[in-house]
Amino acid sequence: MSNPFFVNRGPFKVADILKTLNLNSNEIDENENINDIKDLLLSDINDITFFHSKKYNDLANNTKASFCITTENLKKILPNTCKPIIVKNVLLATSAVTAKFYPNSIDDNFDDTANFIDKTIFKDKVKSGKNVLIGDNVSIGSNCMIGHNTIIERNVSVGNNCIIGSNTIIRNTLIKNNVKILDNCVIGKHGFGFFPDSKANERYPHIGIVTIEDYCEIGCGSTIDRGSMSNTIIGKNTYLDNQVHIAHNVKIGENCIIAGQVGIAGSAILGKNIRIGGQAGISGHLKIGDNVEIAGGSGVIRDISNNSKVMGYPAKNIRNFLKENK
Amino acid sequence: MSNPFFVNRGPFKVADILKTLNLNSNEIDENENINDIKDLLLSDINDITFFHSKKYNDLANNTKASFCITTENLKKILPNTCKPIIVKNVLLATSAVTAKFYPNSIDDNFDDTANFIDKTIFKDKVKSGKNVLIGDNVSIGSNCMIGHNTIIERNVSVGNNCIIGSNTIIRNTLIKNNVKILDNCVIGKHGFGFFPDSKANERYPHIGIVTIEDYCEIGCGSTIDRGSMSNTIIGKNTYLDNQVHIAHNVKIGENCIIAGQVGIAGSAILGKNIRIGGQAGISGHLKIGDNVEIAGGSGVIRDISNNSKVMGYPAKNIRNFLKENK
Amino acid sequence: MSNPFFVNRGPFKVADILKTLNLNSNEIDENENINDIKDLLLSDINDITFFHSKKYNDLANNTKASFCITTENLKKILPNTCKPIIVKNVLLATSAVTAKFYPNSIDDNFDDTANFIDKTIFKDKVKSGKNVLIGDNVSIGSNCMIGHNTIIERNVSVGNNCIIGSNTIIRNTLIKNNVKILDNCVIGKHGFGFFPDSKANERYPHIGIVTIEDYCEIGCGSTIDRGSMSNTIIGKNTYLDNQVHIAHNVKIGENCIIAGQVGIAGSAILGKNIRIGGQAGISGHLKIGDNVEIAGGSGVIRDISNNSKVMGYPAKNIRNFLKENK
Repeated sequence: MSNPFFVNRGPFKVADILKTLNLNSNEIDENENINDIKDLLLSDINDITFFHSKKYNDLANNTKASFCITTENLKKILPNTCKPIIVKNVLLATSAVTAKFYPNSIDDNFDDTANFIDKTIFKDKVKSGKNVLIGDNVSIGSNCMIGHNTIIERNVSVGNNCIIGSNTIIRNTLIKNNVKILDNCVIGKHGFGFFPDSKANERYPHIGIVTIEDYCEIGCGSTIDRGSMSNTIIGKNTYLDNQVHIAHNVKIGENCIIAGQVGIAGSAILGKNIRIGGQAGISGHLKIGDNVEIAGGSGVIRDISNNSKVMGYPAKNIRNFLKENK
Repeated sequence: MSNPFFVNRGPFKVADILKTLNLNSNEIDENENINDIKDLLLSDINDITFFHSKKYNDLANNTKASFCITTENLKKILPNTCKPIIVKNVLLATSAVTAKFYPNSIDDNFDDTANFIDKTIFKDKVKSGKNVLIGDNVSIGSNCMIGHNTIIERNVSVGNNCIIGSNTIIRNTLIKNNVKILDNCVIGKHGFGFFPDSKANERYPHIGIVTIEDYCEIGCGSTIDRGSMSNTIIGKNTYLDNQVHIAHNVKIGENCIIAGQVGIAGSAILGKNIRIGGQAGISGHLKIGDNVEIAGGSGVIRDISNNSKVMGYPAKNIRNFLKENK
Repeated sequence: MSNPFFVNRGPFKVADILKTLNLNSNEIDENENINDIKDLLLSDINDITFFHSKKYNDLANNTKASFCITTENLKKILPNTCKPIIVKNVLLATSAVTAKFYPNSIDDNFDDTANFIDKTIFKDKVKSGKNVLIGDNVSIGSNCMIGHNTIIERNVSVGNNCIIGSNTIIRNTLIKNNVKILDNCVIGKHGFGFFPDSKANERYPHIGIVTIEDYCEIGCGSTIDRGSMSNTIIGKNTYLDNQVHIAHNVKIGENCIIAGQVGIAGSAILGKNIRIGGQAGISGHLKIGDNVEIAGGSGVIRDISNNSKVMGYPAKNIRNFLKENK
């Protein structure tokens, strides 16, 4: 995963990681270094990864990670080069270790590094409105505009020819070229992910970012959350209307048109050339094929194959839906 | 009802109240004082209350109020200690009398007492962003943060360890400890309540507040309206995702998880440990039991008993819904 | 169409228009002037209009326009006084010609003419909060209030006794008297209209405005887009709750009550005295009669006649819906 923004506080000794998890282990050299935490696919030697479901057996069997947070049942799938660290709740443990490597990825307090643009290097470079704030680790290309009261918080890269409206807040986001983001948006905040606990829910870290590709447009009042262990991606030339909500880890392909008040739940993956009517909703972790059309108001709760047209709740073939609902 | 914020302009003489209602009455001593207007349950001696539906016969029969706005048909239910004031439209009359006691509860004009935080007593106490405004009658506990451009309008109490995002507006709200409110929210404005009139609708007063209990989180772009005659309450450790709308008088229990773009209509009462999927809607005045799960996109139009799982529009048992919609 | 705001850069010679469309024509005097572009009904002598569907045969047959962008098939419907300009894609050509007459109607960059109200003629006239911005070509009547951080961008006319909340952005909007617009709204931006193109979608111009009639109220976080070739209209004494989205060209009659999170798609036309429950959606280009009631959560995909009560998705007669869904 491309993660240009969150600072890795590692490497940590194995002993530190075990202590974080309240574990002892006789089987691992506690003086070894662990460089980073990544998923099964992206991990390299001296990284730690996690493996919590047999759905990922193939990935686990081929991981390059040197360490893996997993369960007693699953550990046998791992290659010999990967030492298992056995826990009861893999995701909870992974959250704790991720928080150790990336402590800034949990809380999304306001950016106290943000300063008025007139006091930054962007003063003459960017055409900006009144009261614009820019935080640390921000880059902005040529020929960009930023509207009144907008806050570009820390960890934002804006390409060339981008137009950002007023009253918008952006952080942890990679914006390519020729992108328009309209007014009153919030982009790049952590997603709605936590471990429920009856005393006080525990947030899990969000080390992913938001990537908005070339020629996209994001409508007024929309929210796009950044990913947890992967990125939230809006594909090239995809347009979002007003009041759209895109949850964490969602990936949307090129040339999609998404009408007002649509909501896409976490980790859904959408192909290209998709059209979604107003107020439609897509459940989490679904896969929506290319060239799909989803009628306004539909509730999609199952995967949709390429070139389908669907309508209803639950969404089904549009011709069948209309026949049944004359 | 806990109502720490709205200033009671009473007591008023009975004669004043009758005049407000364009009434004469030979049966009541017009020189008696009326201290306050409350509902049937909370009223005390020398208060005025209202009684407009036989659904509330029991409460009416036991009210301690000295006066009650009601109808010719219902007055016989009241105890001897409570003098009826007979009107044609109880709610309209109640609205007029409430407005007399609490004139500031009708309009929600911007708070002209709000000043830059640097010019208030919170300058050094609160870690705050640029352009933060604080109105009259605000208290803020220790270790709190308030983001850029946020407006804490009049009548807000914030506990300890609270984090409030940027571009958010709050008024008439009691925030307990360890609460997070993210960006672009509007909390504590009057609800969508008025008497329709073909010339110009007449607002009814909203003397309730919003209470947000310990460890809650409110997502970006959410709106929570304050109550009319009771409070809007978000229970302890309840989490709201982005773009959620909570209408006036809604009460939500502890440990609920409410996903993006959910809407809960006025006066609905929700138990604890409830999970609501994205874009679901709950009609007004419903009662939702404990441990209920409501699937995303559902439309709930009837009460739901404890431990139910529902889906669809109208929402029904989830197993039945899925069987019927294979 | 009333269009007080967008400046017409015409007249243009016929030759200029043909060049814009990459056309030659032997049949038209290229030196004639064209004053303006309007729809079939509103066009006058020396205007250019467009005609792309036989649905509009009657209007086309009676247009006063001197020129009409149309197809080979449709041109025979036009009167002799109207010279056809034949193109392959009428709407794309119309867009290009409209952009020529009204170049400022395509992009909605932030208003760089906006300045702090204290530096404008409204300093003493309007009761305003902190950090209020006012753009060019704005008029504001007597006894108005504008809340903190609100931006009245260019091309706004506000009547008397209007109350505008905080963090709201308005442009290209005609607000009559006694109107309330609450916090965090965005009103008057261009609609979600463009010609899809796999490289970069092309926007079509929005030369319409938003008109908000007397005594309306617009709830927090709502968005109202301006029209493309006609205006978006909110009728007298119509109330919108929070998080409502009104798309371009929508026309809503008097005395309507529209609850939270409702969405109305482009070019829908609603009568008067309509009530719409929370989260309901109305598809584009529909006609909804007077005195209609639409239950919360409904999805309306067909025209609705006067005095109907509907519910469901697709919305149908409410009694039938409830009978089928006991």
